[in-house]
Amino acid sequence: MSMAAVKDELLYLGIDGGGSKCRSSLVSASGEVLGVGLSGPANPLHGMSRALNSIDDAARQALSDAGLKQGDMQRVVAGVALAGVNLPSLFAAVNDWRHPFAQMHLMTDLHAACLGAHHGEDGAVMVIGTGSCGFASVEGRSCLLGGHGFLLGDKGSGAWLGLRGIKAVLLAEDGLAPATRLSEAVMETYGVSGLDIVQKLSHSASSDFGRLASLVLQAADRGDAAALEIVREGAAYLDALARKLLLEKPPRFSVIGGLSGLMQQWMSAEIVARIEPPLGQPEIGAIHYAREQSLVTVE
Amino acid sequence: MSMAAVKDELLYLGIDGGGSKCRSSLVSASGEVLGVGLSGPANPLHGMSRALNSIDDAARQALSDAGLKQGDMQRVVAGVALAGVNLPSLFAAVNDWRHPFAQMHLMTDLHAACLGAHHGEDGAVMVIGTGSCGFASVEGRSCLLGGHGFLLGDKGSGAWLGLRGIKAVLLAEDGLAPATRLSEAVMETYGVSGLDIVQKLSHSASSDFGRLASLVLQAADRGDAAALEIVREGAAYLDALARKLLLEKPPRFSVIGGLSGLMQQWMSAEIVARIEPPLGQPEIGAIHYAREQSLVTVE
Repeated sequence: MSMAAVKDELLYLGIDGGGSKCRSSLVSASGEVLGVGLSGPANPLHGMSRALNSIDDAARQALSDAGLKQGDMQRVVAGVALAGVNLPSLFAAVNDWRHPFAQMHLMTDLHAACLGAHHGEDGAVMVIGTGSCGFASVEGRSCLLGGHGFLLGDKGSGAWLGLRGIKAVLLAEDGLAPATRLSEAVMETYGVSGLDIVQKLSHSASSDFGRLASLVLQAADRGDAAALEIVREGAAYLDALARKLLLEKPPRFSVIGGLSGLMQQWMSAEIVARIEPPLGQPEIGAIHYAREQSLVTVE
Repeated sequence: MSMAAVKDELLYLGIDGGGSKCRSSLVSASGEVLGVGLSGPANPLHGMSRALNSIDDAARQALSDAGLKQGDMQRVVAGVALAGVNLPSLFAAVNDWRHPFAQMHLMTDLHAACLGAHHGEDGAVMVIGTGSCGFASVEGRSCLLGGHGFLLGDKGSGAWLGLRGIKAVLLAEDGLAPATRLSEAVMETYGVSGLDIVQKLSHSASSDFGRLASLVLQAADRGDAAALEIVREGAAYLDALARKLLLEKPPRFSVIGGLSGLMQQWMSAEIVARIEPPLGQPEIGAIHYAREQSLVTVE
């Protein structure tokens, strides 16, 4: 292949944008990784223009990192995976973006994570991080479970564990539940007790609550009754969600996210036995999707 | 008593300020109601200057309503009862206000509700409205339970019933819980189903969730399993909170707030048998407190 041919070749960009950062990866038509990028928050639910700027920024970084000119953006086929675009109005709004790419193929972050985990093949993933959700893609059908966000759902997630831990402490302080080690955990994490907890955390974000999660799991390990009740309820939900995903008969099943290791200890053995390691990152999953959607034959 | 004497007499103003409105009542030294007022939101947690403006406005209205001049504010002893001032920093901030009154005596809305319900005497109240909480004042000791707000507590309240109802609908839509009548209730109240529920309600306020409460109670009445589980859990919490208040041996016990009637149907008979009707409004309770604190002998 001549250098000229390479210059005219399509390039594939994968974007994985979430609430705190946006990752990018640029690959050649033959699949070689040429460059990567990392920018800021890219969940359109928390700000559309900031999300689009982060995507643009991450894309430019990947191009620079690959030693290419910004003009080469015209031959980039982008797979853009974002949190939040499971909501139809946000999907439509991002899809209407006058993007700088030759083509843009938009998908949810979860779909990309699933494709990445299974090398672009059929499979299922469950995410246990600050939030929780599940996704399966099998024989052209896809299935999304959970992912309803901190206030309305996300059971078994880090933010949920933390919020439930704080509620248990407040009940214990009112004498409406037995004393719990979680009171020390709350003091250690946030430096407050009693009504100061309410003042400090009444308007906090999910990530603030997630900070308490590992201490809730630790207290459960040590046999604290309140922590055990919380962790078991969360694990039971994750078991049920996993079982529902496995009904779709995915060839592979992976669990990803910051709490995926710790929470597996509390999940049922039958589910844990089905878990296989993810094979790749979500931004690579986004490239799988973009390639498939673009259906372009490279000469 | 001559007119001149009445002119020099102290006046007592009661203020009851909450998240949506601020009520005022002005009484003479002999206890006669002279005028009333009604203004806007007065919870300092949701905006200090707005709260102080609402208090000022309600006070001026009561003076006008009584046919008095604004200069008469100088002989007003005000009992100011506010939501939010159970948080020490907010109490201190409001207490530092350069108020227009001769004296200001600040207390929580709950303390005033308790004094109002029991004619200024010892007693206990439980509030079941958009939020939930309990308060007892017996022999100089007071006891506050719950009232931790929508995100962290307020079990059994309207907002809690609504939030739990919505969570149950989302679980059912994922096939992780049986179908429930609450799905129709959510559609009827908010006009949405499926992921549109998440989009519409992810950032809603407690009062939005409270709108669903009466339909959750109705579904429980009709035997819906999901609604029954929610309502029973809420009622069990309210029973426990009431029991804890009754341990303080209050001579009287009242339940107030928009859902106090409906929720009593689900509470234990032993608790319900102890409930007596409130004798007066919180703003009158605030006046009881101000009179007691001012310790002024009117000549």
